[in-house]
Amino acid sequence: MRVILVGFGVVGQSFAKLLLSRSADLYSQHGIKPRIVACVDNKGSAVSPAGLDLERLLAAKKKGTVGMYEKKESFDPIHVIENVDAEVVIECSPTNLTTGEPGTSHIISAMRTGKHVISVNKGPLALAFPSLIELANYNGVMLRFSGTVGGGTPILEFAKRCLKGDRIISFQGILNGTTNYILSKMEEGLTYESALADAKEKGYAEANSALDTDGYDAAAKLVIMSNWVMGMKVTMKDVARTGISGVKVSDVGRARERSNAIKLIAACDSRRLEVRPTEVSKKDPICVNGTLNAVTFSSEHSGQQTIIGRGAGGMETASAVLRDLIEIRDTNFAS
Amino acid sequence: MRVILVGFGVVGQSFAKLLLSRSADLYSQHGIKPRIVACVDNKGSAVSPAGLDLERLLAAKKKGTVGMYEKKESFDPIHVIENVDAEVVIECSPTNLTTGEPGTSHIISAMRTGKHVISVNKGPLALAFPSLIELANYNGVMLRFSGTVGGGTPILEFAKRCLKGDRIISFQGILNGTTNYILSKMEEGLTYESALADAKEKGYAEANSALDTDGYDAAAKLVIMSNWVMGMKVTMKDVARTGISGVKVSDVGRARERSNAIKLIAACDSRRLEVRPTEVSKKDPICVNGTLNAVTFSSEHSGQQTIIGRGAGGMETASAVLRDLIEIRDTNFAS
Repeated sequence: MRVILVGFGVVGQSFAKLLLSRSADLYSQHGIKPRIVACVDNKGSAVSPAGLDLERLLAAKKKGTVGMYEKKESFDPIHVIENVDAEVVIECSPTNLTTGEPGTSHIISAMRTGKHVISVNKGPLALAFPSLIELANYNGVMLRFSGTVGGGTPILEFAKRCLKGDRIISFQGILNGTTNYILSKMEEGLTYESALADAKEKGYAEANSALDTDGYDAAAKLVIMSNWVMGMKVTMKDVARTGISGVKVSDVGRARERSNAIKLIAACDSRRLEVRPTEVSKKDPICVNGTLNAVTFSSEHSGQQTIIGRGAGGMETASAVLRDLIEIRDTNFAS
Repeated sequence: MRVILVGFGVVGQSFAKLLLSRSADLYSQHGIKPRIVACVDNKGSAVSPAGLDLERLLAAKKKGTVGMYEKKESFDPIHVIENVDAEVVIECSPTNLTTGEPGTSHIISAMRTGKHVISVNKGPLALAFPSLIELANYNGVMLRFSGTVGGGTPILEFAKRCLKGDRIISFQGILNGTTNYILSKMEEGLTYESALADAKEKGYAEANSALDTDGYDAAAKLVIMSNWVMGMKVTMKDVARTGISGVKVSDVGRARERSNAIKLIAACDSRRLEVRPTEVSKKDPICVNGTLNAVTFSSEHSGQQTIIGRGAGGMETASAVLRDLIEIRDTNFAS
């Protein structure tokens, strides 16, 4: 299977490393032999119809850009997507929750030229899920995005596959590890400001932390889940969103007195989408600490189920991309 | 799809009710129209090649046995399994972890006559998993058993499907709700004896509670998971098993001082199978209370994931049977 990798940051590089370390058993166990025929980052491109040498590609990136792979002319992502023959495009360029770009253009170009898409980029999905799915169907290609929610934790697959035959009525979850880390630290006595500073120091929060603390990241994941799991047609603008910057140490203290904790909960009951700080019982399985993510699904017949795992990490997210790739293979190219 | 239901206790009756309430959308959403062509309990049988009327079947059972469905001659389970035309046998007779009977004979008869099997009965699987899988393969039929572990919580599917492409290295879990309830009550200050009495009063523990408290039930589930998830070939005799009757209030107290709790943990690291009371941090997602079940999988690339849900319940387990039925349909009869 020929793959074009668009974006070569932490996840893209982890994916290349994963392929290097797993190539033998991927073929023996899953009959899959992915070939990266092109890779584009923000400074250059590398193309090889026979498949790029991934060790060399990673070495080139260390020097600054995959454009150093060969001293050839570099092309922009859209040109590569439209002109290189491949079955799958993996979109890992940076998430932008305001414009969705450049990811949305990449995905549209890929689908219009008949390529399946795996997106790790939440932006395009959060802003235009319904129309992207429509475009995928129209072009007869698959759009998968396991890595956008829960990192390596298969939250989307769980809901879609494991609860087959049942009806999910609602779900709620902690979908952002950074804010959960901050709230956990406030639980230990830190103020919001010092907890945020601590999260930045540990590398859990970006310099611009508003995407996390204002609830945008959680809202984006909520939108993706609500479309995929509940069959809703919603985008970012349908989410009622409150961040955690207004949470005070005294609020956390009062919650603790009731054996509760304050968590940034993203919830969907098939009508309403909401992200806001919510008091949760410490006995509830959803009440996880640190950077963990947790989601509880309520289904009609099989009751409530909670799934918990790390919501981020390069290798974890790369493993989600690999799952998507295997699913695309199994659906389209299995003998 | 024609189905023979062997055993008509809580799970069997819940399954009949589930089919009644879901028949319309099962057909529209999954293209599946299961027909119960025979049902056998310990006192009689009902057979109808056109499909039994499930309302009438449930009413007959209320009078004592499905044999009251029609005033016809009753047959024993083996006779029904061997002589009634059907695609699937659902084995829900009572679990026996010493002999595996009568479930094992039912399953063998079903597979020998070319029928797929869904077993809710843990006995046959715990005692003879490797040879039953071999027999299924030899006869070209499927053997499924989602309801044996986790009730309605899709623990087996999660491991098998959602972590595709990754390698599960080990797992550990709380697989028995009754003992978890007892240990949770001891945490609240009750002695082992009063906690056990409380569990019996609430209906969580059987009159003969040794199956739970001595760890047999957890060990049976551990065996099923180790075979299915880890590809091991093991049976009950391979489990090092310690029950909870030796756990003292003072042990629980000492654990609490360290912010830990004592849980009956079933663990498999691909070499060793063990069930024993274990001290677990209260911050660990696996540390659930009451009758909940929880399993944490450690996989090579996607890290640790925990899945939590109720481990029992008639309707929950029936929903697991339905998932198996849909899977058998999709694999064998999908157009």
